[in-house]
Amino acid sequence: MAIITVVGAGMMGSAITFPAAHNGNTIRLVGTPLDRKIIEHGQKTGEHLTLCHDVNGVKTSFKVPAGITFHYYEELDALLADTDLLLCGVSSFGLDFFCENVIPKIPEKVPVLSITKGMIDDGEGKGNLISYPEHMLKFTDKKLKINAVGGPCTSYELADLDPTTVTFCGPDIELLRWIKSLFETDYYHVSLSTDIRGVECAVALKNAYALGVSLAIGLSYRREGRVFEHYNSQAALFGQAAKEMYLLLDLCEGTAARNIFLGVGDLYVTVFGGRTRKIGTLLGEGKKFDEAMEILKGVTLESIVIARRTADAVLQMVEAGRANAADFPLLLHIRELLADNADVNVPWAKFETEFEG
Amino acid sequence: MAIITVVGAGMMGSAITFPAAHNGNTIRLVGTPLDRKIIEHGQKTGEHLTLCHDVNGVKTSFKVPAGITFHYYEELDALLADTDLLLCGVSSFGLDFFCENVIPKIPEKVPVLSITKGMIDDGEGKGNLISYPEHMLKFTDKKLKINAVGGPCTSYELADLDPTTVTFCGPDIELLRWIKSLFETDYYHVSLSTDIRGVECAVALKNAYALGVSLAIGLSYRREGRVFEHYNSQAALFGQAAKEMYLLLDLCEGTAARNIFLGVGDLYVTVFGGRTRKIGTLLGEGKKFDEAMEILKGVTLESIVIARRTADAVLQMVEAGRANAADFPLLLHIRELLADNADVNVPWAKFETEFEG
Repeated sequence: MAIITVVGAGMMGSAITFPAAHNGNTIRLVGTPLDRKIIEHGQKTGEHLTLCHDVNGVKTSFKVPAGITFHYYEELDALLADTDLLLCGVSSFGLDFFCENVIPKIPEKVPVLSITKGMIDDGEGKGNLISYPEHMLKFTDKKLKINAVGGPCTSYELADLDPTTVTFCGPDIELLRWIKSLFETDYYHVSLSTDIRGVECAVALKNAYALGVSLAIGLSYRREGRVFEHYNSQAALFGQAAKEMYLLLDLCEGTAARNIFLGVGDLYVTVFGGRTRKIGTLLGEGKKFDEAMEILKGVTLESIVIARRTADAVLQMVEAGRANAADFPLLLHIRELLADNADVNVPWAKFETEFEG
Repeated sequence: MAIITVVGAGMMGSAITFPAAHNGNTIRLVGTPLDRKIIEHGQKTGEHLTLCHDVNGVKTSFKVPAGITFHYYEELDALLADTDLLLCGVSSFGLDFFCENVIPKIPEKVPVLSITKGMIDDGEGKGNLISYPEHMLKFTDKKLKINAVGGPCTSYELADLDPTTVTFCGPDIELLRWIKSLFETDYYHVSLSTDIRGVECAVALKNAYALGVSLAIGLSYRREGRVFEHYNSQAALFGQAAKEMYLLLDLCEGTAARNIFLGVGDLYVTVFGGRTRKIGTLLGEGKKFDEAMEILKGVTLESIVIARRTADAVLQMVEAGRANAADFPLLLHIRELLADNADVNVPWAKFETEFEG
């Protein structure tokens, strides 16, 4: 049994603690300053304010399992004293907060497990993307062991105990085995990998491409004049996405042949998971990016940040001659949509290839 | 402009002629002896009897585009005389009929394009799978040029003009370019490849795995006690499927790194496309395979044939020491369901891996 402290009490930071709580571990959910209402509600009711079971629009909050308690951010220093594992549970929007405020105070002996998914420019200006664990290490001189979670998992489905497979990655396989022992249940299945870059890159790339696949949903609505989905076009975009992700993974030194499967699984769940799908659908229906963002105002669209960042990085790699623009027609079109407010005009013909062996 | 004769007037054999007809080619849809009602109905009404636009259960037949005519099988010999391209439009169930009756009468100068997807044992007893074009060549001494179509495409969505990407494969790139010129439209996009084995294997494998992914749909229904889908578990199975397909592709000498994208696109559309989804869902809900087949009596379940064949081949490869059973936990579970009427018990823990680099 271990004491796990989570910083960030949002949906994913909370849901991932369910299997650990079911295993009998002690969980402290610590809200960031943005999570005060979640903490207040949780302390009062034992329910999570934002993590919901949603059936056809009817939302029911989850009661958190026994062993999970809610805490304000001010308690963090005290809680760190006997913490065995620190979870980073913030979204990409909370990454700076976590790096600047939390990373420096983590004792060297306390390992970190981060659920925040994404890649970030390494700051050298050449379009090189690095993983969040690599980025976090820049904010401390201590030898922290920063692990991360990849794999197809939406928070509300995990909280619903839907069978879920994920990959924990980190620098030390023995440490990973111990972390796995805290989380593995009959509904939460954990693979392990010391290939941090590969795992994190594979699951970050899906953000841009989930938007790309869901363009087809909106295009169908537009063509049919009603809510009606077609799957040939979705599958065409899904296949093209998988191909571009494979090439990008290798460009990011992420070993595509090993990690692409994490990426396609994560892409699948993200196409159906909610927020990214909404913006892709709106764009497909004919809205400009600015209009779509206005319609979805108030919704956290982490994927858009990652999508922009990935697309910008690829453009930089193309400009530096390290990548071939012809290999990334879908991503570069997504970039036009996000950065230039362009109209959707899927470059189908550019997906065509010719192979003579 | 060319004269294209199709043998097999079912849904896919007919739908693929729509883009060719829109390009102004002359199409003769020749029914097999099983298609007589389709031919009779088509000649009378200009509509296709079984190819339907289905919106929430309301089915509307398609009027076929100008340039397509319907013919009984007895007319085939006469029609072959001025045919520029022969399409094999039968399902896997019609493959023997096509090989035994049609292949021997095709003139050497008439190239073939086959839409029948699948792999078949090479008959040597070692579990080696070959593509249908390779199999077809065994039925003639002539040097026929047999090409084939792979890629994510359901017939009714193609007939609906939903943007679709496919790959034509065949032995001769110049010939492939000519065939492409007959079919390419602004909604039907054709890649080309001379890697027949790789393309056909990639798109055949999806049959077994689409059943595997849709198990999660039925399992959700069962757990929830109602029609409610979860996507974490579907994505877990999708990712595992992609991984096993990648390994299988290489075992079949299908060059996974080049062709896996065709496989995952095709898997995606098949999970949503209908018949395979139905049987996977029923199995997930708790039906035995025999019961599920009884419920779906009358529905053509081509995928089941391919799924069994692939799973049997892998088992043979495992027994011969050429494949590792631990690499194919999902496919081997699917085999238990189909061959042994086993209960669904997804081997989630067997999907877990550990990589130390």
